[in-house]
Amino acid sequence: MKTSAIRPIAFEGGRLFVLDQTLLPGEERHIELKSVEDVREAIRSLRVRGAPAIGLAAAYGVCLAARASRARDVEGFCRELSEARERLAGSRPTAVNLFQALGRMVARLSRLAEGAGGGGWADMFERLNEGLLLEAESIRAEGEAACLAMGELGLGLLKPGMGLLTHCNAGALAAPGIGTALAPVYLGQERGYGFRVFADETRPLLQGARLTAWELMRAGVDVTLICDGMAAAAMREGLVDAVLTGCDRLARNGDGANKIGTAGLAALAKAYGLPFYMFVPTSTIDMAAATGGDIPIELRDGGEICELWYGRRMAPEGVKTWNPAFDVTEHGLITAIVTEKGVARPPFDRGIAELMGAG
Amino acid sequence: MKTSAIRPIAFEGGRLFVLDQTLLPGEERHIELKSVEDVREAIRSLRVRGAPAIGLAAAYGVCLAARASRARDVEGFCRELSEARERLAGSRPTAVNLFQALGRMVARLSRLAEGAGGGGWADMFERLNEGLLLEAESIRAEGEAACLAMGELGLGLLKPGMGLLTHCNAGALAAPGIGTALAPVYLGQERGYGFRVFADETRPLLQGARLTAWELMRAGVDVTLICDGMAAAAMREGLVDAVLTGCDRLARNGDGANKIGTAGLAALAKAYGLPFYMFVPTSTIDMAAATGGDIPIELRDGGEICELWYGRRMAPEGVKTWNPAFDVTEHGLITAIVTEKGVARPPFDRGIAELMGAG
Repeated sequence: MKTSAIRPIAFEGGRLFVLDQTLLPGEERHIELKSVEDVREAIRSLRVRGAPAIGLAAAYGVCLAARASRARDVEGFCRELSEARERLAGSRPTAVNLFQALGRMVARLSRLAEGAGGGGWADMFERLNEGLLLEAESIRAEGEAACLAMGELGLGLLKPGMGLLTHCNAGALAAPGIGTALAPVYLGQERGYGFRVFADETRPLLQGARLTAWELMRAGVDVTLICDGMAAAAMREGLVDAVLTGCDRLARNGDGANKIGTAGLAALAKAYGLPFYMFVPTSTIDMAAATGGDIPIELRDGGEICELWYGRRMAPEGVKTWNPAFDVTEHGLITAIVTEKGVARPPFDRGIAELMGAG
Repeated sequence: MKTSAIRPIAFEGGRLFVLDQTLLPGEERHIELKSVEDVREAIRSLRVRGAPAIGLAAAYGVCLAARASRARDVEGFCRELSEARERLAGSRPTAVNLFQALGRMVARLSRLAEGAGGGGWADMFERLNEGLLLEAESIRAEGEAACLAMGELGLGLLKPGMGLLTHCNAGALAAPGIGTALAPVYLGQERGYGFRVFADETRPLLQGARLTAWELMRAGVDVTLICDGMAAAAMREGLVDAVLTGCDRLARNGDGANKIGTAGLAALAKAYGLPFYMFVPTSTIDMAAATGGDIPIELRDGGEICELWYGRRMAPEGVKTWNPAFDVTEHGLITAIVTEKGVARPPFDRGIAELMGAG
């Protein structure tokens, strides 16, 4: 699969490299992140983005902190990594994979520290580092497997020749592996399904135009770029048979936070009688959130609306803006939630509990 | 009213000037249009835009052709103006005001030519020119009056303190006078209604960001700029109490073509239980169109999506695009249609017929 050439995050020889997604599609540059602060900045500024990819980058960020530690004992080491966790956790608030991955790293560290046993600090330091790296690699491998499984399950919901509308980027750039919402598109492409994909450009940061169009074209997928406001017209014209999106955090009732614009798409899909499928690895499900109201929504700087990506400012100086990065799609607007463990259908509270309990 | 300072189109001393709206908000430059070809180019490239403004510009374009005529008799003059009309009519296809205004100019010319009576060609040439200019000035004056009337009728539908969402620009830049959908906003501003306006930026050409935000800020209106995909979130947050848009062509069943993105907004308004008001001077009603299916929808170049207004290209080279400039809002999604002659409510076919018959 051509997406194998896309590696948004690579940890090699103790060094962390990410594809700087703020430069796409004009430039394909991998940059090295050398510290927790670098990782934090890269997440905050969306050089790395996509809920699963953010989680993985943060896990590797913990590995960087572990390798750089000057602690002389387990307590000092754990203290340093706890600080690293706090810094990374503060990078962005909405995607729960960040907290989920950091939680896994800390839990692994606790287990390693408890079972540390004998030997000098140098040996133990080595074992702690190895164990943490193994945890990060597990997050990667499980993420890749989840993408493949969601791809298969998602493909089962679709038919050859369908027109598929997607929003933002939930592809190979957003996750380890072949992506979440785009996973069935890639599998379908291998199997001659002949999907026609419509990619919302996804203002303000244009992840659809810059990232989704780029990675789908690279894989030879038939993709057409539209502005967000054209989705209803595309539905009305009969160009769209299903809507596929990713998710940044799903509450246990099925309400899902995803890139701003998703909630509107889901409402339009319902109005036009089209299925709306949300692709949600279980690492993106937050069982502590009862409903979408419990999900913190990041508000970002209005400069993203007024000038980013523009050669000249295209809004008046001083104009007020409102720039939520995500919105919550109510579960009643979702046709099915595709996880790597199965497809949940309404009532979602029961389906999600079963999928999570089966973990 | 501060909008009086905004004159998108001015015909003075036989010369036509327009505010070049492609340069806003960065630069406020009035350019002279010296020929029919200049007017055609200005409409096609959206230096002049907004259905009523396009109609007025085209009417003045006929005046320019009349003044420049080298004809030696009435037949030659009418032939030249007929050619001018064809050129102007080919500038853009959707806004019916263009054809309505050109039709008025031609009808006036026919009446003038028929009743020409005696005198030399020089006298008659002068009378024809005067008559045509009077017709254009009538179009302007009626347009201004229609905006004021729609403002009063629209204000009657609104309450102080409301949050109002609008799309594209249906303000003082889009029409002679105080605009169509923004007319009640301006009247409310004078009368202390304290509206909070949310302006969709309106991709691809950003008329909301560049024009609506600019003219409302200038008038001191509380305006917040959002991306088109944020409208649903704004509705869900309770920030919006009503949606107000203009219209480029209304069919006699109440289906209305307006800037791409409007149909989706109307569907969202319905989903969130909010009223959707379309502001439609009778000059924008096309009784020859039975439904929205009879309205030609302009498809524009995909470069508008991929690079216009951007310092660097933000979509991959060669990406396919779909760029309809308008969409059709089905009459079932419209709460009320505000014309200068009255407010039509469902069933619209009857209400529209009454309003047009009462003309």
